[in-house]
Amino acid sequence: MKDVYEYIDKHQDQYIEWLQELCRIPSVAAQNRGMQEAADKVAEYLKEKVNGKAELVSTAGFPVVYGKLAGKKEKTLSFYNHYDVQPEDPLELWNYPPFEADIENGKMYARGVADNKGNLVARIAAVHAYQQVRGELPLNIKFIVEGEEEIGSVNLEGFGEENEDLIKADGCIWEFGYRNADGRQQVSLGVKGMAYVELVCRGANTDMHSANAAVIENPAWRLIWALSTLKDKNEHVQIEGFYDKVLSLTKEEEEAINQLIYSEEEMLEQLELQSFLLNLNGDELKEKLIFQPTCNICGIESGYTGEGSKTVLPSEARAKLDFRLVPDQDPHEIVSLLRNHLDKHGFEDIEIIKMGMEKPAKTPFDDPLAESVISSTKQVSNLEPTVMPMSPGTGPMYELCQKFGIPSVSVGVGNFESNNHAPNENINIEDYVDGIKLIATVLEDYAKR
Amino acid sequence: MKDVYEYIDKHQDQYIEWLQELCRIPSVAAQNRGMQEAADKVAEYLKEKVNGKAELVSTAGFPVVYGKLAGKKEKTLSFYNHYDVQPEDPLELWNYPPFEADIENGKMYARGVADNKGNLVARIAAVHAYQQVRGELPLNIKFIVEGEEEIGSVNLEGFGEENEDLIKADGCIWEFGYRNADGRQQVSLGVKGMAYVELVCRGANTDMHSANAAVIENPAWRLIWALSTLKDKNEHVQIEGFYDKVLSLTKEEEEAINQLIYSEEEMLEQLELQSFLLNLNGDELKEKLIFQPTCNICGIESGYTGEGSKTVLPSEARAKLDFRLVPDQDPHEIVSLLRNHLDKHGFEDIEIIKMGMEKPAKTPFDDPLAESVISSTKQVSNLEPTVMPMSPGTGPMYELCQKFGIPSVSVGVGNFESNNHAPNENINIEDYVDGIKLIATVLEDYAKR
Repeated sequence: MKDVYEYIDKHQDQYIEWLQELCRIPSVAAQNRGMQEAADKVAEYLKEKVNGKAELVSTAGFPVVYGKLAGKKEKTLSFYNHYDVQPEDPLELWNYPPFEADIENGKMYARGVADNKGNLVARIAAVHAYQQVRGELPLNIKFIVEGEEEIGSVNLEGFGEENEDLIKADGCIWEFGYRNADGRQQVSLGVKGMAYVELVCRGANTDMHSANAAVIENPAWRLIWALSTLKDKNEHVQIEGFYDKVLSLTKEEEEAINQLIYSEEEMLEQLELQSFLLNLNGDELKEKLIFQPTCNICGIESGYTGEGSKTVLPSEARAKLDFRLVPDQDPHEIVSLLRNHLDKHGFEDIEIIKMGMEKPAKTPFDDPLAESVISSTKQVSNLEPTVMPMSPGTGPMYELCQKFGIPSVSVGVGNFESNNHAPNENINIEDYVDGIKLIATVLEDYAKR
Repeated sequence: MKDVYEYIDKHQDQYIEWLQELCRIPSVAAQNRGMQEAADKVAEYLKEKVNGKAELVSTAGFPVVYGKLAGKKEKTLSFYNHYDVQPEDPLELWNYPPFEADIENGKMYARGVADNKGNLVARIAAVHAYQQVRGELPLNIKFIVEGEEEIGSVNLEGFGEENEDLIKADGCIWEFGYRNADGRQQVSLGVKGMAYVELVCRGANTDMHSANAAVIENPAWRLIWALSTLKDKNEHVQIEGFYDKVLSLTKEEEEAINQLIYSEEEMLEQLELQSFLLNLNGDELKEKLIFQPTCNICGIESGYTGEGSKTVLPSEARAKLDFRLVPDQDPHEIVSLLRNHLDKHGFEDIEIIKMGMEKPAKTPFDDPLAESVISSTKQVSNLEPTVMPMSPGTGPMYELCQKFGIPSVSVGVGNFESNNHAPNENINIEDYVDGIKLIATVLEDYAKR
């Protein structure tokens, strides 16, 4: 692959520009900003840069960009990515404008550069470099680029069901991947599921002077009391039945946990924290991160939250929660259990709005695509990757792959301080270039397996 | 007083315009908007409309507008008001622009029209009408108009201590007052105190992808757990020592509670609620409203609260709380008890920011000013007023009056659905005109007592 690597090195400025151009489109799905423009741009890249067939497949929400390129062999590798990004707030904590893709000290900063535009463009660039150096691709390639990943991939399940022929593949490279603090690539073989809900508690039909708090119920108090029953201070979720379907670890998984590098000190230092949750460390910490479900408050709001003081009795309180789920938890079942829990504790009046439902998914260690990615990573970086049996993150891997028997492996251009979903999201330019080389290597290697 | 009343009726359009002009200045103390302009306007009214001496007395914050007018007798009546208003948000719930003072169906709508500009301008108008009809005032008058009432009157205590000679008076008409749903005026003889605090809980130094919630502490959870220990579902505050200094009701106070009209049905209907807190009604409800302290959440915020979903682990969580206090609770002592409580429950890391501290205050039923206001109210409206031994609201009555032995009585131009601190704040034009007549009557009546 030396010839292809050299081509990539020589043309990296061009590939960096492609990425910057896409990052400058603020495609925030949650706020319906720049979505059509980003989808069109991705389709344009697939058609004009790598000469593929590309179309926008409409869904009930934002379209899926679908791309197809024929290769020598009947084998098909697909890439799953997304062109939407998280909202950029809180804006005041960014040191760089979130949609200008500035480069400084070897890093590119932009909302979405790590999650997920860097990976998407690196894959297109890998195909481009391979074509330029070798001509025909070694296998068929498909691109499935959705626009709703950051809002729970609400229409991707429907897309998969209606377009099974489009997504059919022997294996799928999943959207994300990171380099650890020790420089090693993470290859991961699954994702957690998710139930994202908003809880709404309502009081009087208007905000009131807080002198009335003596006699009028405050929905913020009710929501706080309700939330406080969901999880105890030992982080144990109190919803009846919540853990019932959580599988025990296999011996192979325990072994993988043990082998996994998790840079505890670097992580704590970077976050300026004294310790992890419950003072966990070592295998216990890694097991909790990878194999335990969560119950997290993503946001809560009620009443006056501006500058200074305002004496108000709020009329409404809202909280956004995400539950990260592990095999064999089911998101819809978890929401039912949550409903039962709230009812049982006297919070029948609190509304639950379902906002994103995804099942967990896993690919076996000995799958050919897994083996190909692991060996290609070693070849590009000269370092043994760490293999995660499952990622702590979430994605519609079940809905797009596992359900149709397609194995799926995650690897990508992020790093352990990429600040996904947070201010100053970034990637290392070096990781981006390596990521292009890695995908080019997988094209060649996986075609032979 | 017929001559004066006739003059007021004849010139009401002019008095309405004075009020509109002041309401059009958005003097939001919490956001430092329009404050100097409003203070200058009040001083201008005192000088140009009623020929008084007026000056802006500087404080560590916004200035106090001080006005003085000499009368026949050595007796002095003072008026305490404020020219600042609450923030107008949530703006989308207003049916009228909050700073245009539109009049529709006999009501004027504006932020601050009830709290407190309507009362302030009605008092200036009363002095004006009295002067126009009778010439010399029957007693000395002082105006003390501060600019920080809505942010806890943080500098008024210092102003009082440094300017005891300026505030010296035989009695003080306090800033607010309302007409009940049954049309009767409320006259109240005291105010609750307040401890307004913000609680801040901090986590990592940045918001993170919520996949990390499995191993990184979420400050929103910690804040919720901490808040949930403060008050139980029976509304009983759990802070040790919180109720220790709450005085029992005197026989006179119990009698007043019993006599007090509280329009339960109208209130519930207006707010679209099924019941009051804990299903209270009758004397128990009124006693809780007037004589019990509160622990209220004015606002809470953490993480992503925008449209749609964002999977984030917040780095910080904040809650604004107000405790309304009754004799003899002390706000600083309450904050110490809160600190002890949080420490005892393992929340030493949660910061408490003090934002407004006021002591409760009461004036006796048989005080001459109280008797004068009650009798004057009867004279103007032909209805017996309801007498509140203490208002559920708060103000610096202790700091400005009680501490210096000055009795203080509240009466004003608001109504039971004035929406103070809330969208569509309003007063009835009729109540405004009656309010002008009432103050003119008190000038004459109190001078004789």
